Amino acid sequence: MREWLGKITVVPKPAVNDPQGIAVLDGLHSLDFEEVRQVRVGKHLDVRLQAESQEQANEQLNVMCERLLANTLIESYEVRVEESDE
Amino acid sequence: MREWLGKITVVPKPAVNDPQGIAVLDGLHSLDFEEVRQVRVGKHLDVRLQAESQEQANEQLNVMCERLLANTLIESYEVRVEESDE
Repeated sequence: MREWLGKITVVPKPAVNDPQGIAVLDGLHSLDFEEVRQVRVGKHLDVRLQAESQEQANEQLNVMCERLLANTLIESYEVRVEESDE
Repeated sequence: MREWLGKITVVPKPAVNDPQGIAVLDGLHSLDFEEVRQVRVGKHLDVRLQAESQEQANEQLNVMCERLLANTLIESYEVRVEESDE
């Protein structure tokens, strides 16, 4: 068993309202960042886990997203796995 | 001017308490994901903006992080820039 670092991104799907993103967009415009057109806000998770292989770690992380970490009705997720340096 | 997609990750620094990460870790253990050792929870932002070049977009996004998007006392951030496909 080796240790892996899963990097998970969970963002609202394009059709879903994102009031937090609108608030950040307004904030950036107030600070004169006029070049910003859209902001979407989601979650980032760093998950350290034990697994036999990178493929197994990736599979486990996808199951975690489906069961707990993402609400797949309104959110999409992306999983990347790196070797853990800790 | 072209459109770029900035992908920003903001996570609590290692020394900073992360109660949300502990809650997610407990939740994963309750669901029998015993192989998970640590979870850290942060923010992910997709920022679409206009800029002359990828370098300029990257620079602007870093300034936004310093001024609004991250609390650099307790959070670290990472910026990546891609060509926007929209």
